[in-house]
Amino acid sequence: MLEKLREHIKKIVPLTDEEFAFVRAHFTIEKYKKREFLIQHGERVKYSYFVVSGLIMLVYDDDSGRQHIVSFAMEDWWESDFLAYFNQTKATMSLQCLEDTAVLCLSLEDYEKLCAGLPKMTYFFLKKANGGHIGSQQRILSFLTSNAKERYEQLLTRYPSLFQRVPKTLLAAYLGVSRETLSRLWRPS
Amino acid sequence: MLEKLREHIKKIVPLTDEEFAFVRAHFTIEKYKKREFLIQHGERVKYSYFVVSGLIMLVYDDDSGRQHIVSFAMEDWWESDFLAYFNQTKATMSLQCLEDTAVLCLSLEDYEKLCAGLPKMTYFFLKKANGGHIGSQQRILSFLTSNAKERYEQLLTRYPSLFQRVPKTLLAAYLGVSRETLSRLWRPS
Repeated sequence: MLEKLREHIKKIVPLTDEEFAFVRAHFTIEKYKKREFLIQHGERVKYSYFVVSGLIMLVYDDDSGRQHIVSFAMEDWWESDFLAYFNQTKATMSLQCLEDTAVLCLSLEDYEKLCAGLPKMTYFFLKKANGGHIGSQQRILSFLTSNAKERYEQLLTRYPSLFQRVPKTLLAAYLGVSRETLSRLWRPS
Repeated sequence: MLEKLREHIKKIVPLTDEEFAFVRAHFTIEKYKKREFLIQHGERVKYSYFVVSGLIMLVYDDDSGRQHIVSFAMEDWWESDFLAYFNQTKATMSLQCLEDTAVLCLSLEDYEKLCAGLPKMTYFFLKKANGGHIGSQQRILSFLTSNAKERYEQLLTRYPSLFQRVPKTLLAAYLGVSRETLSRLWRPS
């Protein structure tokens, strides 16, 4: 599990064995079953998660009980309710498993210790944060410029495997369309 | 102008005089008139911009010539077509002044030199990138969960000064609604 983290970090910054020993000491391993929650809405957010295997989703439940999916995260992705994580406030979203999932957990305290102890890791997190910011900007753009059909096709092109792994109801909640609209767009090949 | 940058950085990391001398050497000052472009769609993106004074907007023009506003940026904000900036590709968006604007410009080469030469600056950029990522996630959430009226009210609460400084047509292009819909929501006090 920890080797996957090392491979992942190495794509941005190479680490010596000694440096990686320092890094790994800040993570804990957790395994969750399908449907279990890593973060529950209203609770304190303890960790940012690196997904080693499996699939999780970041969900916002509105006042009327409708689910909205902010993002899916699979292998090699980082996910959390980042607003609550960085501000140490209570979660406004939930993070739930769509498959059995293994994650590496990093507390904010340990995140800060990694940054302070190893500038290479600050740079690594910077690259990931910039990537996250860019990805979110692209999604905002897709909401502004694309209709449901186009957003569906963009998702299909970018992450084809999601269509095998995620129920249609949840894809609809990610795209911001009704289940019925999605069914009209859905043409299994 | 450069003192504003120092004050801005100091909120996250304190810098010695010597460190700030190193930082400032990486920036250039530019002044633009209202309606001028900092970034033109289709051209190379040279800089990330720190807004010292004024107001700029990041705009996407779709194939039918309709304008969509991804973000507004005013004093103390950083803005660019970040996808094109970090990947050194051509701009898919434009960055245009809504007021006479003064900016500090940072090339990607100098951004990387600042990170390599002063780990404190990597940490500073990390905090800004995390903030940008969180802000974008909140905006995605507002598209998923809120109707036009709610998005309008969120914007009014969060950035009241925008309503004095930005024409209504552009606020509509930011909120993803028609000018007519915005006019129905608009109740000047």
